[in-house]
Amino acid sequence: MSDTLERVATTIKARQRGDPKNSYVAQLEAAGLDAILKKIGEECAEVLIAAKGEKRQQVVYETADLWFHTLVMLAHMGLGPEDVLVELERREGISGLTEKSMRE
Amino acid sequence: MSDTLERVATTIKARQRGDPKNSYVAQLEAAGLDAILKKIGEECAEVLIAAKGEKRQQVVYETADLWFHTLVMLAHMGLGPEDVLVELERREGISGLTEKSMRE
Amino acid sequence: MSDTLERVATTIKARQRGDPKNSYVAQLEAAGLDAILKKIGEECAEVLIAAKGEKRQQVVYETADLWFHTLVMLAHMGLGPEDVLVELERREGISGLTEKSMRE
Amino acid sequence: MSDTLERVATTIKARQRGDPKNSYVAQLEAAGLDAILKKIGEECAEVLIAAKGEKRQQVVYETADLWFHTLVMLAHMGLGPEDVLVELERREGISGLTEKSMRE
Repeated sequence: MSDTLERVATTIKARQRGDPKNSYVAQLEAAGLDAILKKIGEECAEVLIAAKGEKRQQVVYETADLWFHTLVMLAHMGLGPEDVLVELERREGISGLTEKSMRE
Repeated sequence: MSDTLERVATTIKARQRGDPKNSYVAQLEAAGLDAILKKIGEECAEVLIAAKGEKRQQVVYETADLWFHTLVMLAHMGLGPEDVLVELERREGISGLTEKSMRE
Repeated sequence: MSDTLERVATTIKARQRGDPKNSYVAQLEAAGLDAILKKIGEECAEVLIAAKGEKRQQVVYETADLWFHTLVMLAHMGLGPEDVLVELERREGISGLTEKSMRE
Repeated sequence: MSDTLERVATTIKARQRGDPKNSYVAQLEAAGLDAILKKIGEECAEVLIAAKGEKRQQVVYETADLWFHTLVMLAHMGLGPEDVLVELERREGISGLTEKSMRE
């Protein structure tokens, strides 16, 4: 499961070049950046609503939708999950040290 | 890099039990679910703004913020990135087949 | 035009009791609070996208959508635009004085 | 109360030209469109969170914040509440007729 995001991103890139008749991702790509970002906004709202409703399975489902559509946006911009993961790694290192120094 | 989300989630869980004086995550945890969700809404808006501004590095940075705060929410609810990744895997399988059947 | 929000709110309240087959507002009301809030999240994203795209007419259109769906939410909760306008009036007074005192 | 939005918009326009040291609106204006839009995203999330929490007074407060920041955005773009109200009026007419024709 550790490379799920990378595999989903690979699938997204393949489908973005596909026929919009056959693929949701190709439809989104054809509709353009605004359509992709609108979906991110929608899915974010659904995450908030599910979390406030204490619907755990729904939270998982909506977070998957949110992450998926951010992957579609990244691919549209020539970016990928590895760019985001590197940034998270960088902070993990920094904030680990920061927390340590704050504690000492 | 393949297990970044899991490692960040582990760090988050450790810090949620920490002292709010020393840790941003502990502060968020002490502030509660509404504060965490508010941050998710903020970061989502920042992703949209960065993407529309065609600021690629900013998009990476804001997406990292968005994913990070969804991980904080998941941990708060006793969930983790593995739950979301399993859901993405499940769809990858299904939608792969669906796309295949649509093409045939 | 000065009582537009009140008149729209009156129409919304009448339609919420209507037949979902004949009215979008009745459909939203039947779908419940989560459906209304999801629309607010969507329209908010569209406002951001339109504004960043410097599409002035689109900004007007999406802001109208956003305000409309907040009116639907208020009506669903037994509230109305007058409640929000009273709050804005209250702040107008306070922040006017605050600004004045800051200038002196 | 019927002209509250217009009066708030007039105040906003006056303050946008003011000194950021003395005025929140001048600060937002100096920070630029992205800062204004970020606030709209934040306030929208707070509306959703308050509504799901069934906190009626909080819903009024956060909706006032959301409307206020959309007024700041409109002013920044050389637009005003009257533009949005005209659009709402236009729809009120159309959708009234549409609903009527659907009922007949």
